[in-house]
Amino acid sequence: MSVFTAAADQSVCSPLPVLGRDVTVPLVTGGEVTYAALDYAASAPALQRVWDDVAAYAPYYGSVHRGAGYLSQLSTDLFENARRTVAEFLGCRAEDQVVFTRSTTDSLNLLARALPADCQVFVFETEHHASLLPWQDAKVTYLDAPRTPQQAVTTLERALAGRDPYGPALVCVTGASNVTGELWPVRELAAAAHAHGARIVLDAAQLAPHHPVSVRDLDVDWVAFSGHKLYAPFGSGVLAGRADWLRAAEPYLAGGGASRKVTRRQDGGVDVEWHESAARHEAGSPNVIGAYSIAAACKALTEAGWDTLVAREQHLIRGVRAGLAEVPQVRILSLFGDDAPRVGVISFVVEGWNSSHFAAALSAEYGIGVRDGLFCAHPLVRTLLGTDPQTQGECGAPEAAPGEKSLNAIRVSFGAGTPDEHVERFVTAVKELVTEGAKWTYRTEDGRCVPAV
Amino acid sequence: MSVFTAAADQSVCSPLPVLGRDVTVPLVTGGEVTYAALDYAASAPALQRVWDDVAAYAPYYGSVHRGAGYLSQLSTDLFENARRTVAEFLGCRAEDQVVFTRSTTDSLNLLARALPADCQVFVFETEHHASLLPWQDAKVTYLDAPRTPQQAVTTLERALAGRDPYGPALVCVTGASNVTGELWPVRELAAAAHAHGARIVLDAAQLAPHHPVSVRDLDVDWVAFSGHKLYAPFGSGVLAGRADWLRAAEPYLAGGGASRKVTRRQDGGVDVEWHESAARHEAGSPNVIGAYSIAAACKALTEAGWDTLVAREQHLIRGVRAGLAEVPQVRILSLFGDDAPRVGVISFVVEGWNSSHFAAALSAEYGIGVRDGLFCAHPLVRTLLGTDPQTQGECGAPEAAPGEKSLNAIRVSFGAGTPDEHVERFVTAVKELVTEGAKWTYRTEDGRCVPAV
Repeated sequence: MSVFTAAADQSVCSPLPVLGRDVTVPLVTGGEVTYAALDYAASAPALQRVWDDVAAYAPYYGSVHRGAGYLSQLSTDLFENARRTVAEFLGCRAEDQVVFTRSTTDSLNLLARALPADCQVFVFETEHHASLLPWQDAKVTYLDAPRTPQQAVTTLERALAGRDPYGPALVCVTGASNVTGELWPVRELAAAAHAHGARIVLDAAQLAPHHPVSVRDLDVDWVAFSGHKLYAPFGSGVLAGRADWLRAAEPYLAGGGASRKVTRRQDGGVDVEWHESAARHEAGSPNVIGAYSIAAACKALTEAGWDTLVAREQHLIRGVRAGLAEVPQVRILSLFGDDAPRVGVISFVVEGWNSSHFAAALSAEYGIGVRDGLFCAHPLVRTLLGTDPQTQGECGAPEAAPGEKSLNAIRVSFGAGTPDEHVERFVTAVKELVTEGAKWTYRTEDGRCVPAV
Repeated sequence: MSVFTAAADQSVCSPLPVLGRDVTVPLVTGGEVTYAALDYAASAPALQRVWDDVAAYAPYYGSVHRGAGYLSQLSTDLFENARRTVAEFLGCRAEDQVVFTRSTTDSLNLLARALPADCQVFVFETEHHASLLPWQDAKVTYLDAPRTPQQAVTTLERALAGRDPYGPALVCVTGASNVTGELWPVRELAAAAHAHGARIVLDAAQLAPHHPVSVRDLDVDWVAFSGHKLYAPFGSGVLAGRADWLRAAEPYLAGGGASRKVTRRQDGGVDVEWHESAARHEAGSPNVIGAYSIAAACKALTEAGWDTLVAREQHLIRGVRAGLAEVPQVRILSLFGDDAPRVGVISFVVEGWNSSHFAAALSAEYGIGVRDGLFCAHPLVRTLLGTDPQTQGECGAPEAAPGEKSLNAIRVSFGAGTPDEHVERFVTAVKELVTEGAKWTYRTEDGRCVPAV
């Protein structure tokens, strides 16, 4: 691929080994090909190193906390060490809490339930649903989509200037868009929030796997991310940051582990003393393997080195963008324009193609796994597509819209485990599909787009 | 061990292979010994078969739902198949929903948030905190500890008879106590609940790993259990049962996956249409490996055969109880008496011993992992110990109380992976510790009971 050859920097490292790198899948046109997982923004494969660590630990798994046995104490130590590893990975302040949740969605829902009374929340309409929707019990101001990073700051400042300056307020902002991959000006937004007495939570679901994140350097109050996008798909996520709101809040879940002491009262009721540590919001037996896998990923990424990882990913981004630029029928979706800094997440539409059929052809004819839809960021994608706000777009339940103009988009995304060959194959496939058409026809069946055999 | 030889039934099958069965741990008295994991009631080791299935699947892990790639569609199918496997395992009705949660605690908190307005909740004070505490926003009636199964039914009937018969009501009951292992009369309690127009949720956290559970046969409205007690410690749990309350409730978490359509309104607000399927309460990327591991455990247990598994566990229970009966200083905690049917969960105190020191000695001198404390069931354990309701008893944060009389108890628990040798070693160890004393001294350090070296 010329664009890759041209862009290739010989100093760029190899991809990190991931699980499934040798898996082959059948093609509808015959034969098999190694699977090109290009849906990292939805969920990334496990790093081989993460899997190896989990596999090495699994025989030593034991009941944590009050278990008296050797493996229980070992597991308790590993679980609490995982918290420290994550705190270090995120550059947390000494007094910050690290709460293990199940995902970014869970983390932000937890924070939403921990808001002080009468808290105002400010969130851009461009957020994905995980950071757009959890605040509906608070007084939410949805901010219009900015078209430059600077405009994002100005929009936020204007909104904050109009608020009651004495009440609590929270800004929720994504670090890297799950649609455009574009980086948001987190440090500047944090400064604006703090200047107006508001706090800020960084949704790092798409940022943390691609870019170093420092709570201290960015001066954010909280950060949330998911293990399964950080090459650790074992059901855990993280909310890390200031302890005060978390300590003051009702426990996220009521149950054992969060409760320090439970007593039956004389009048028949029950009194509960809750923990004030992170355990307050972690009722139930913790997902030790999930937490441990996140810590393993943090270590693996740190050891690989962010400079190297970022350089390699930027090399892949340049190749994909240069390749797509050679196809006039392709329109890349962008809020901040071509020059905006970004991570390896690129959404686009292809003129004359239904996006679901295009994605299905990439899978069936090339063994490439991308995503089609509105990417759980409906308002943003409709804004970028220029479609009617009432347009249907499923999230989590596929539906291919018939007709010439696609109401959905296609998203290709990649990361630390992606070899050049995957994105090279992707660019080739896009070019061939656009110029030669699909070799097969596709139809929608049970809400899924499949080859019409 | 005489009690085991006497009780041994040659037709009893071998234990199911579990991860960690060959792990050795050091003894404070020198040498190493294979670890005897006897804290199954807190968390059980993974079945080897579950681990093998997870390991075989892990390279094929892909982003579920709207991913167009082969592995995404494979993973989506496996995830949805896991739901069906669980429904079958639980004997669900055709119209029941299976929601994947992170644990029993999470499942019951989800149901608590789905209660209709003005719902009355009835729960025995004997419940562990996961089923005792989630209802505090409802109108809860805590029922006194019954001393026979029949008394449990009578107590519930009396309480229900006094309620407003036209409003919604829910009974929450555990299937097998996490303290005594005793079975509760679930079918009879369900009949009583329904006779009074109430619904019932079965907390099967301790029942499902040891005993077949059928939603239909027991005629319960919901059932909850945890993967990590069912030999699948990968961060998932289940709430299965009637769809109506779940469909009518606000989504448990707000975010992608639960939302069908999100639109910005003209007035600047945001409208959301939520799914009505199980996805409504599963926002965020699902824990596919967690769900898959639970399905693998369901299949493995079903294939091993419940008759065989129950027979083997009852053989172990008989051996432990017969062994402990030979030690007059041991008092087994029981609500329903010696003849009550039970699973492999036995709590006890030893006269003249601090329970934490006893548990520490079992670990350090015999390589046996049990648990000490109040087992996240504070009111029940205090009732059984006869200690003051205000007695401190940590849950999740160990504390060994000094002095002669133990304020906590010791719990030994086991299951499908437990070889005879583990429980034989346990009985020998109890006898030796009681007659000869510990070979080491123990003290509390950083909230943990350790050998005083």
